[in-house]
Amino acid sequence: MIGKKKWIIPDGFLQPISTGDQISHEAVCVLNVEEEEAEIKMTFYFEDREPMTEFVTTCGAKRTHHIRLDKIKDANGDEVPRGVPYAIEVDSSVPIVIQHSRLDTSQEALALFTTMAYSAE
Amino acid sequence: MIGKKKWIIPDGFLQPISTGDQISHEAVCVLNVEEEEAEIKMTFYFEDREPMTEFVTTCGAKRTHHIRLDKIKDANGDEVPRGVPYAIEVDSSVPIVIQHSRLDTSQEALALFTTMAYSAE
Amino acid sequence: MIGKKKWIIPDGFLQPISTGDQISHEAVCVLNVEEEEAEIKMTFYFEDREPMTEFVTTCGAKRTHHIRLDKIKDANGDEVPRGVPYAIEVDSSVPIVIQHSRLDTSQEALALFTTMAYSAE
Amino acid sequence: MIGKKKWIIPDGFLQPISTGDQISHEAVCVLNVEEEEAEIKMTFYFEDREPMTEFVTTCGAKRTHHIRLDKIKDANGDEVPRGVPYAIEVDSSVPIVIQHSRLDTSQEALALFTTMAYSAE
Repeated sequence: MIGKKKWIIPDGFLQPISTGDQISHEAVCVLNVEEEEAEIKMTFYFEDREPMTEFVTTCGAKRTHHIRLDKIKDANGDEVPRGVPYAIEVDSSVPIVIQHSRLDTSQEALALFTTMAYSAE
Repeated sequence: MIGKKKWIIPDGFLQPISTGDQISHEAVCVLNVEEEEAEIKMTFYFEDREPMTEFVTTCGAKRTHHIRLDKIKDANGDEVPRGVPYAIEVDSSVPIVIQHSRLDTSQEALALFTTMAYSAE
Repeated sequence: MIGKKKWIIPDGFLQPISTGDQISHEAVCVLNVEEEEAEIKMTFYFEDREPMTEFVTTCGAKRTHHIRLDKIKDANGDEVPRGVPYAIEVDSSVPIVIQHSRLDTSQEALALFTTMAYSAE
Repeated sequence: MIGKKKWIIPDGFLQPISTGDQISHEAVCVLNVEEEEAEIKMTFYFEDREPMTEFVTTCGAKRTHHIRLDKIKDANGDEVPRGVPYAIEVDSSVPIVIQHSRLDTSQEALALFTTMAYSAE
């Protein structure tokens, strides 16, 4: 079994401004090397409001899924809010590994950052 | 309990120069998934002077706090000095998870970096 | 013995566009401080197709190898596909340490990101 | 005791080209929260030659040291070579925490990356 079932990402932010051909966005990148599809639930935490809890997706067995946070919707059809700080908790039905990346094209050119997420227990 | 009570960030620097619409800054991004508010104390270490110890803030239960290091003040009203290398120790009353990020707009366009902090047990 | 024999990198992407003098690329950077050459096998996982498994290379004893992912070929002479999300599993015959970096020159200027890979025991 | 005595950084590179006011460089950023000065020895590993072993420096008690890799010299007065891939092993007399960062101004604007180093044993 490779990976963990719970991962934490404290620095989330969807930059609302883009320039050039690429849209500013974040991705939660999942690798599932197990034999079973991973059911994935993401909870978004904010500075000044209650968490949003019902973002669900999957990652197939022996597959990766680079989950675009500017595209996902929760069970109510709501998107992740733009331009406000958030943090993410990821829960999976099978062990996975998670890396978090941001692409920002708000000023000329583009900027990137990435880090492995923090694996809880 | 998710996270740790003590975190270390060796590479801190407040870039004093900015271009465009965004201010160069750093943020210590906290996620607190516990039921209790976190009392957070930050100590700043330098290359050539005594540490500054009295930067205090909070992160609510089930909340994130992206602490802007260019805005916080210590108990004496002093700010984090600009343009000098520093390092940060973060102590919390409850377990939290910490990610550290920098935005630099000192030359054209912008640059970003991020990493999970080091969790000292 | 320093390092691990298995490492995971969820966020892989070969940017097909470059500007200026530098080619957009990724590198899997290996350090082998042991006395024995490391035999390294990389498996690439995708979102919508079977993994590619036969990318093999080495890292000498007391040497580093910054493996350029835009240059390696598998046993069939196939390259890592451009412009699609992937993830990487690295297996080594001796303990190594792995860091993953991307250089992107698709828009003006350049962007960099890096992270330590996740070490699966 | 906070931190470790041995740290590994696989992706090192001194970009020989700079534009604008800032010099392309890397830094090994150290935090020493102990009561005793840290004696630090750095070994540089290469792809095609023997390691360079005699880079020594210090980090005071309760101090940070952002070691500029474009400025340090070994016992023979030799510098870290520019424009070639390398990897770094850091050994300290007391526990420390290490973060590694790069600033690249080789094309317009600037790019940054950072990661916590890998702590061996």
